[in-house]
Amino acid sequence: MSSPNNRATLLISCPDRRGLVAAISGLLSEHRINLIDAQQHTDEIEKQFFYRVYFDMSDMDVSREQLQQLLEIECGRFNMNWKLSFADKRKRVAIFVSKYEHCIYDLLLRHRMGELDCDIPLVISNHEDLRGFSEGFGIPYHVFPITPENKEAQEAREIELIRSENIDLIVMARYMQILSENMIATFPQQIINIHHSTLPAFKGAKPYHQAHDRGVKLVGATAHYATTDLDEGPILAQGVAECTHADSVDDLIRKGRDIERVTLANAVRAHLADRIIVAGRRTIIFR
Amino acid sequence: MSSPNNRATLLISCPDRRGLVAAISGLLSEHRINLIDAQQHTDEIEKQFFYRVYFDMSDMDVSREQLQQLLEIECGRFNMNWKLSFADKRKRVAIFVSKYEHCIYDLLLRHRMGELDCDIPLVISNHEDLRGFSEGFGIPYHVFPITPENKEAQEAREIELIRSENIDLIVMARYMQILSENMIATFPQQIINIHHSTLPAFKGAKPYHQAHDRGVKLVGATAHYATTDLDEGPILAQGVAECTHADSVDDLIRKGRDIERVTLANAVRAHLADRIIVAGRRTIIFR
Amino acid sequence: MSSPNNRATLLISCPDRRGLVAAISGLLSEHRINLIDAQQHTDEIEKQFFYRVYFDMSDMDVSREQLQQLLEIECGRFNMNWKLSFADKRKRVAIFVSKYEHCIYDLLLRHRMGELDCDIPLVISNHEDLRGFSEGFGIPYHVFPITPENKEAQEAREIELIRSENIDLIVMARYMQILSENMIATFPQQIINIHHSTLPAFKGAKPYHQAHDRGVKLVGATAHYATTDLDEGPILAQGVAECTHADSVDDLIRKGRDIERVTLANAVRAHLADRIIVAGRRTIIFR
Amino acid sequence: MSSPNNRATLLISCPDRRGLVAAISGLLSEHRINLIDAQQHTDEIEKQFFYRVYFDMSDMDVSREQLQQLLEIECGRFNMNWKLSFADKRKRVAIFVSKYEHCIYDLLLRHRMGELDCDIPLVISNHEDLRGFSEGFGIPYHVFPITPENKEAQEAREIELIRSENIDLIVMARYMQILSENMIATFPQQIINIHHSTLPAFKGAKPYHQAHDRGVKLVGATAHYATTDLDEGPILAQGVAECTHADSVDDLIRKGRDIERVTLANAVRAHLADRIIVAGRRTIIFR
Repeated sequence: MSSPNNRATLLISCPDRRGLVAAISGLLSEHRINLIDAQQHTDEIEKQFFYRVYFDMSDMDVSREQLQQLLEIECGRFNMNWKLSFADKRKRVAIFVSKYEHCIYDLLLRHRMGELDCDIPLVISNHEDLRGFSEGFGIPYHVFPITPENKEAQEAREIELIRSENIDLIVMARYMQILSENMIATFPQQIINIHHSTLPAFKGAKPYHQAHDRGVKLVGATAHYATTDLDEGPILAQGVAECTHADSVDDLIRKGRDIERVTLANAVRAHLADRIIVAGRRTIIFR
Repeated sequence: MSSPNNRATLLISCPDRRGLVAAISGLLSEHRINLIDAQQHTDEIEKQFFYRVYFDMSDMDVSREQLQQLLEIECGRFNMNWKLSFADKRKRVAIFVSKYEHCIYDLLLRHRMGELDCDIPLVISNHEDLRGFSEGFGIPYHVFPITPENKEAQEAREIELIRSENIDLIVMARYMQILSENMIATFPQQIINIHHSTLPAFKGAKPYHQAHDRGVKLVGATAHYATTDLDEGPILAQGVAECTHADSVDDLIRKGRDIERVTLANAVRAHLADRIIVAGRRTIIFR
Repeated sequence: MSSPNNRATLLISCPDRRGLVAAISGLLSEHRINLIDAQQHTDEIEKQFFYRVYFDMSDMDVSREQLQQLLEIECGRFNMNWKLSFADKRKRVAIFVSKYEHCIYDLLLRHRMGELDCDIPLVISNHEDLRGFSEGFGIPYHVFPITPENKEAQEAREIELIRSENIDLIVMARYMQILSENMIATFPQQIINIHHSTLPAFKGAKPYHQAHDRGVKLVGATAHYATTDLDEGPILAQGVAECTHADSVDDLIRKGRDIERVTLANAVRAHLADRIIVAGRRTIIFR
Repeated sequence: MSSPNNRATLLISCPDRRGLVAAISGLLSEHRINLIDAQQHTDEIEKQFFYRVYFDMSDMDVSREQLQQLLEIECGRFNMNWKLSFADKRKRVAIFVSKYEHCIYDLLLRHRMGELDCDIPLVISNHEDLRGFSEGFGIPYHVFPITPENKEAQEAREIELIRSENIDLIVMARYMQILSENMIATFPQQIINIHHSTLPAFKGAKPYHQAHDRGVKLVGATAHYATTDLDEGPILAQGVAECTHADSVDDLIRKGRDIERVTLANAVRAHLADRIIVAGRRTIIFR
């Protein structure tokens, strides 16, 4: 019988050639798998093929392990990068915060309301401030104060904790520390950051102050995968709000908070639903 | 060799079952057709399957007629409604106008700039006013004045003209006459209208006056296929703009014009690119 | 010395005539009051004058009581409706909820972050569900279960409680009961409701279901003052989000929640800052 | 009797102090002038006062020349920068274009529909391409081909022409030449340019290519006064549109055109209605 728990998502990217959709959809239907949603994108300039299939395995005539072996073989024939995610294996998310509460609050509320299909087994912070928030939602809160001297050691402990908890995704919900290259390299395309400007405008510190100084008429936010190049990671989502001369820096910060929350949530939801493929600096995000 | 002229779009809808994507993509790739873009949507409540495939026929090993025969057979097996459109057979569009110039102007300008992949062999109006516009773009302008007495006869002449020109799509660019049931039934899902409100709000006459009277903070527009139920046709696109207490009815009309233009153009472009499938009162619009 | 606590807002509406701004600004500056922000709107059709002045009283040479007497006299000369609010007298807000948590949550979080300049001394509900939320923010939670039989008596108790707490504004944060005419008449222009559609579209029950059935491409929300005509009160704020054929009713509900939160907060903030004047079915909202 | 032709707009900026609104509104009402719309903004950080008054002179008991003398005296007392514009003295606009047609087309169409309250006595271009467009609207088209060698001389001729035509505003409707410092200095805050990105992102050449390369999810446009610092002038209006991985550079250009048109028109309309005051790099734009 059909059930959300018998479902899976397959993400594929590879050099374009004829017959890719037929090969994959043929393999799946041959084993009594029903496609619910399938989307293909071809980058005709780079000659790359991208594919997302969401399917139901209720009548599948092989085991999940056999399905993976079959995909291993078939995808190997076409040099495909592929990733299979089962819906009943919920992703595990760690939230990083400092002192700003709006993003973590929004995420925890969405989680409680069922908008985010994941477990959130821990929050990591460099400050004590939001312990009450986090524990009020029943989520353990771990503090690793960061100084220039202890940063490497503390990050090592954080990595250990994250690994011990089998974390699939790290969400930097306005975490005010720059992660080390080592940390970022340890979790490639597994760290989502929210920057409070429409990148590439206003990179770096205090973007709302920069925006006010420049006299812009729109403020915004950008969610992106963290890379070792600060504020240069592949963009996942962006949003804007109108502003006027009457808006002080504080007003921009307030307006920006609403955009940050929605933009970050959109990026996290896309990641959790396996809708994202990174291609160089760009992202394919299937809807 | 690959060329935009060797391409086609296939639209399919049918009751959902296993193997539909595999069957279609298998047939296409078997005949050396390369899929550029494919999108599937399944309505899990109505158990309906919707599919759009855009593909390249440069290496196809059968003729176009043979392809159609093969699809006839394969789609028949699955009770599929299907429609195949060749990119090099440009659609032919007739624009209906009355006195407002902004929508026709916008369409003709977009056409000139290459945004609308179609031919526009004629404009039909019930008034002389926009003859200059139309002929300035080199498009014949046909006037059929409408009175209650002559409406049936005039529409009969319009239908004859439209048929003789092999028109695929009629765009009502603020045409201020209600089409008869006969006219609408003659061109099912081939007539796009723009209504100047976000339907179902403010149906009928003078929606901007209604909106001003109600004191709304958003005005908008809706493009939809014309049906015999006035303002009730399947919605294709909607847009809004903010307004305030300071906006007079004339300001709402002005702001609305910008929304009408973009909304109508979006709907026309989706139709021309064979991205639309109508399902009851709803539309599937593949992006 | 200038301080936010020495400030006040004056709202005025009256029939238009010459000299109104001069009279008011003259009176204020004569008494060493400094205007920070002043906005006038004239409805040239209805011949009505609307004015909002936000000013600093740090150097004022009369007492607040004397200022009120002077305004009483001056505004009387011009048949002005006027309302003076002192910034250091924070408004008191009661939140009404049922079971949906997103709106109350959003309001309480904004309040904690300093976005809402008010006190929130109580939450009233017809259900126990959100007691934890409310009390977690330190706000007393009062439950008045409503049945057809006890509605009148329970509302009488609610009114008594609201009065005893000197409440200035009632915010219906998705409160799922229709208030009686008596209740609404008791607090004119003091009750803000959020309706989950862009009124006048989809009045009444289950607007997201109605929207899905109609196949719209935009969903939205409307904040308005409650009046005895259900969903017909003066509109304060509206917002929309795009949707597609792929959105289920649950998706519309999810997208709508984000719009409801922001739209409701915008309306509440405008009310708290004394930016709203109601004129018939319309609202003047100074920015 | 009241008439749009008996109206005027007064723009004022000066150091903030008490009594400014009272002084100006008192002077105006003393001479039987009726205020239609008045808006004040105080920059509390820079201690600057900004004021816009739109008023009716139908019953004014002095001549226009006397009004100007009275303002000269009164504004002098407060060190006010002031500018008075009479509604019946329509501003004169010159449009600069190169080869892209969408912006000029949009402006000319809006002008014809009565959206732009100005005269457009000439179009200046460095190419012949759009002569037909321009002359089709009855507007003389002047071509000044630009080479590195002749640029100074050609600009001198352009300046002479602009002066001889008493031009108040130059609109660069995607004019693809960088104006010289001399040209810009000759018409301070009288040249509006449209840049096809949300500045400060993607300054310089080919912003849509830059945006595609960076993989952004929003493209936009910025209208600003031209200054000798390229793409650094005070921002007047900004707009954005969503984009996805499926959008090619050509798609971004197409989406951007719609934003450019609306953004440029908004800026031009604000300038024509005397709603703009420049304060350093920022703009106060009264609505």
